[in-house]
Amino acid sequence: MNPPTGAPLLVSTDQLVLGVHAEEDVSPGQLARKLLRRTLSDLAAAGAQPWAVTWTIAAPREKGQAWMKRLARAFLEEAENFGCSVIGGDISNSPAVVLTCTALGKEGRRRNPGRGGAKAGDWLCVTGRLGGAVQSGRHLKPEPRLTEGRALVQRYRAKAMMDLSDGLARDLPRLLEASEVGAQIELDALPLSRGLKHNHEGWQAAVGEGEDYELLVALRPGQAKRALQDPLLKRIGFHIIGEITAERGLRWLLDAKEYTLPLVGWGHDWNGS
Amino acid sequence: MNPPTGAPLLVSTDQLVLGVHAEEDVSPGQLARKLLRRTLSDLAAAGAQPWAVTWTIAAPREKGQAWMKRLARAFLEEAENFGCSVIGGDISNSPAVVLTCTALGKEGRRRNPGRGGAKAGDWLCVTGRLGGAVQSGRHLKPEPRLTEGRALVQRYRAKAMMDLSDGLARDLPRLLEASEVGAQIELDALPLSRGLKHNHEGWQAAVGEGEDYELLVALRPGQAKRALQDPLLKRIGFHIIGEITAERGLRWLLDAKEYTLPLVGWGHDWNGS
Repeated sequence: MNPPTGAPLLVSTDQLVLGVHAEEDVSPGQLARKLLRRTLSDLAAAGAQPWAVTWTIAAPREKGQAWMKRLARAFLEEAENFGCSVIGGDISNSPAVVLTCTALGKEGRRRNPGRGGAKAGDWLCVTGRLGGAVQSGRHLKPEPRLTEGRALVQRYRAKAMMDLSDGLARDLPRLLEASEVGAQIELDALPLSRGLKHNHEGWQAAVGEGEDYELLVALRPGQAKRALQDPLLKRIGFHIIGEITAERGLRWLLDAKEYTLPLVGWGHDWNGS
Repeated sequence: MNPPTGAPLLVSTDQLVLGVHAEEDVSPGQLARKLLRRTLSDLAAAGAQPWAVTWTIAAPREKGQAWMKRLARAFLEEAENFGCSVIGGDISNSPAVVLTCTALGKEGRRRNPGRGGAKAGDWLCVTGRLGGAVQSGRHLKPEPRLTEGRALVQRYRAKAMMDLSDGLARDLPRLLEASEVGAQIELDALPLSRGLKHNHEGWQAAVGEGEDYELLVALRPGQAKRALQDPLLKRIGFHIIGEITAERGLRWLLDAKEYTLPLVGWGHDWNGS
């Protein structure tokens, strides 16, 4: 297998544990789709396009052949939908269902901005809307923002970018730490999912629930203004939510005053959080 | 990250489930080393050289930080020993310990022979010795036959090759099926591990226990004869054990007569076997 000629490769790897990242009763098709889409969301955050994937299935034999066939069929179909070849895999007996996927992506002329390039004065923007993903079932079929991620890197020179899997309150600090900066977020500016209101509960849902798989990006103000006018980004929603600061730490602002927003919900992290 | 210029890439992916591929009481260091070495053994069977790896860890939080640190340290050290960069990974909470590794390898001028190229009249050869891997503890630190695999592809034009993880009796039929051929194996020609004798029990151990991670290769007779003289292969042991036949099926031979060797032991396969 030859890699795309001359194109830098990007590799992302992700896993899906039944009972941790998905409820015990989800169908094998839902598991397979979520697995692939989560992994591709990582590529999207790097501005890369999917090229090929490998995956592994660890599952109890008791799941049975029919379950396994549905899982495999859904994964292969979804890979085809996203234009990536499935080039390898492994199946094993296991006490728990643990699926993993490793995706190889092609980078464009401008490369993966990573999380470490945000500078004081950059604006923070997000695609789509935040909150309510689990309640609405959207967490089972996240939409990897592949064309949008590429546009943010190639057209608007993203300084730092990541996908929001654990929610803004857990994910943004990772970007801030990598970039050695802080940020202030205007709660009123958060694009809330339908059904959420601009109040304490709504903001907590938007920043704490996670599973949105939207892109969080730091852009220079001039680039952010241009991006706001881009039809590709406007179609899915694109909003400025705050600013990178030299002062470290993450501050939530309401009417220009600091607002206390305790982190609720739960983390997927091995350490908890 | 740029792939090696112009070199075709090969991807192999493998997993290690605690309680399935390793006993519950093995140390995190042993797990990490076995995980990487098994994955690299797949590359060896393709005649490829390791370039970069990603890995995933799914484990119960109760394993604790010290366990996790020992696991990670051993994996990183072992990757360095084999000259491959660790370019990504993921950690998740999980009810069971499931580790996976995906390795990217560089192929040489001659490419991965795969399993499907064996033809009637080819000779079947194996590296090293077979049997007793679990009892001796060798199964925890398999030796990926990387330089030998490359030599068999580049110098001796391997027609088909694979690594023996489940034992000759389970693995060889996979090669035969892929190549649409059969084979006969001379039991007296099997290179047995120390402690095994050339008798029924010894042969059963050599072909049924698995976990040897030696290379099984089909070569043209002339190439096989040359390979037998190669110091690199002689150093670890290299033996002709049989021949590819046009007639399908796998036959064990003793003194030129067919010998019945029932398959004992166990399989890792999801379907059992």
